[in-house]
Amino acid sequence: MTQSESQMKREILEIPEAVERLLSLGGANIVQAADDVRAIDPPFLMSVARGSSDHACTYLKYASELLLQRPMASVGPSVQSIYGVNLRCDRSVCVSVSQSGQSPDIVQMTRSLAEAGSYAVAITNNDESRLAKVSNATLPIHAGPELSVAATKTFVTSIIAGLWFLAEWKHDEALKAALFSLPEFLSQATSCDWGTAAGAMDGRPLYTLGRGPSWAISNEAALKFKETCLIQAESYSSAEVMHGPVSIVEQGFPVLIFAGADAAETSVAGVADELAAKGAQVFATTSLVKQANVLPHVRTGHWLTDPIAAIVSFYGMVDQVAANRGINPDVPRHLNKVTETV
Amino acid sequence: MTQSESQMKREILEIPEAVERLLSLGGANIVQAADDVRAIDPPFLMSVARGSSDHACTYLKYASELLLQRPMASVGPSVQSIYGVNLRCDRSVCVSVSQSGQSPDIVQMTRSLAEAGSYAVAITNNDESRLAKVSNATLPIHAGPELSVAATKTFVTSIIAGLWFLAEWKHDEALKAALFSLPEFLSQATSCDWGTAAGAMDGRPLYTLGRGPSWAISNEAALKFKETCLIQAESYSSAEVMHGPVSIVEQGFPVLIFAGADAAETSVAGVADELAAKGAQVFATTSLVKQANVLPHVRTGHWLTDPIAAIVSFYGMVDQVAANRGINPDVPRHLNKVTETV
Repeated sequence: MTQSESQMKREILEIPEAVERLLSLGGANIVQAADDVRAIDPPFLMSVARGSSDHACTYLKYASELLLQRPMASVGPSVQSIYGVNLRCDRSVCVSVSQSGQSPDIVQMTRSLAEAGSYAVAITNNDESRLAKVSNATLPIHAGPELSVAATKTFVTSIIAGLWFLAEWKHDEALKAALFSLPEFLSQATSCDWGTAAGAMDGRPLYTLGRGPSWAISNEAALKFKETCLIQAESYSSAEVMHGPVSIVEQGFPVLIFAGADAAETSVAGVADELAAKGAQVFATTSLVKQANVLPHVRTGHWLTDPIAAIVSFYGMVDQVAANRGINPDVPRHLNKVTETV
Repeated sequence: MTQSESQMKREILEIPEAVERLLSLGGANIVQAADDVRAIDPPFLMSVARGSSDHACTYLKYASELLLQRPMASVGPSVQSIYGVNLRCDRSVCVSVSQSGQSPDIVQMTRSLAEAGSYAVAITNNDESRLAKVSNATLPIHAGPELSVAATKTFVTSIIAGLWFLAEWKHDEALKAALFSLPEFLSQATSCDWGTAAGAMDGRPLYTLGRGPSWAISNEAALKFKETCLIQAESYSSAEVMHGPVSIVEQGFPVLIFAGADAAETSVAGVADELAAKGAQVFATTSLVKQANVLPHVRTGHWLTDPIAAIVSFYGMVDQVAANRGINPDVPRHLNKVTETV
């Protein structure tokens, strides 16, 4: 009997093509938004999102801080939708990420910030959505229809649209070139075999770790384990994990660690080895580890895009873990595609 | 054989007295810092911290946003210590929280922000620490020695020092009055009996939930379950949990929910009942639930201080859960009192 391919798996395999489409079609909106924002010269940025989209924002937070030296605050939609507060935010930029662009709390928070003087940038798969309508600029992610409940190609394209916007803002030609070379690398990433790691993720609770932009990827991986495999994975910064959470690490505890070729790689590899020495089963996307297991990983030629290749390889694995556990990742328990929160 | 009282338990019982001391001794520094900051009129704030101290910062983020309408960005120390970036942050305020005031990454990030023009406020138990020396203002928390590895009274006093600072900044007399009446309420909170909930927290993974300031408390509770009970508790916003994490909730799954008497209480109670309907064992600090179990809770007369009473009651319970599991909460596995991160 052949295992039928999941919708999620099909969409994972579509990622390189979706990114190609974004790179072909997305330029005009991104250049315009970057020009506008450069003129504002905002001292800080804000992000508004939930779920996978919020992990994309965490990635963009590190990119904003590391590339443009501008802090980005993640603002909870409840500040407006529940507590009724309009934040003071004149001369700031607000980045709102939502595949559907329809969740009431995301729309309401973005509208409040735009009315208070923030330049609102919507990153969405629906440029006719309510979110697009309340924003100053819309960056469509051109992902095409995403039918699987678990976001994969929209997560990747949301990050790339946001990174491209920041690269245009900074006139960072190296990052732009790296983004334009991504489809080929992401295609390679879909072929990385994480089967050994998949075998170790057998249902026990586990940790995913990363640092900087790779921590955002770790957040996304932990969510995917929960929603598609019913495994309680929890994400930590590889620094933060040593401030308490390390206590629960026991013999055989599975740990999945994301690291790109950036300034954090050595330190992250050190934590991987430290956890392996405590008896954990550690798998890491870096060759710098000595005791932990090295996962096959693609290097993209730019430290800020490496984690994107890693999440694509991860998606393939998490689909496999779900299959190993006899779970259909396309129908996560208790979930719908669009979660409308107030 | 009588069970000997843990050091952690002794320090939990000292919380009302420590708060009393802070309220008696802390005023001058706080008023001065508030005067300075009011003159700057910063468009945004930043926080720098790790572990429990970072959860205190999440509390202060909501307080800053809800009271003063000013966004607060949590900035990762790695931005400076690992990636070597000095953020642009002129005319901002940076709040750094650290019991010891000694962790190199917290000190380095704070120094970088202060040098870039941010007004740095250190909330610390050691006003001679390196953190205090690189900051523009120091707000000593007057907690007295904390010997237990797991922070309890320093977490509570850090939040109170920060809230008091924000209340002075805003000249919010109602909040100041609420803070000054806290010791009596916190003393009541140490007597709330959460024994039934403690019995349900038997080692299985669980969720802690909250929204707004209570979400910060939920973060702290999840960390304490891990470090003192070796239970993998994970914290979510009660809104965020419905965007994926809800998938793993199965029959008997324990959930602990924090809610104060604020604008989020009804919505949080709704999530509590929704999870109870899915078969979870839900315990909540609100009487608005219909299906979930109500935990004994103290109301403090101000929505922004209720969650502080809840964490004090929680600390008593988590000590009990550790004892039920035969774990000494004073010697968490793999941990030291001061975690020095780079």
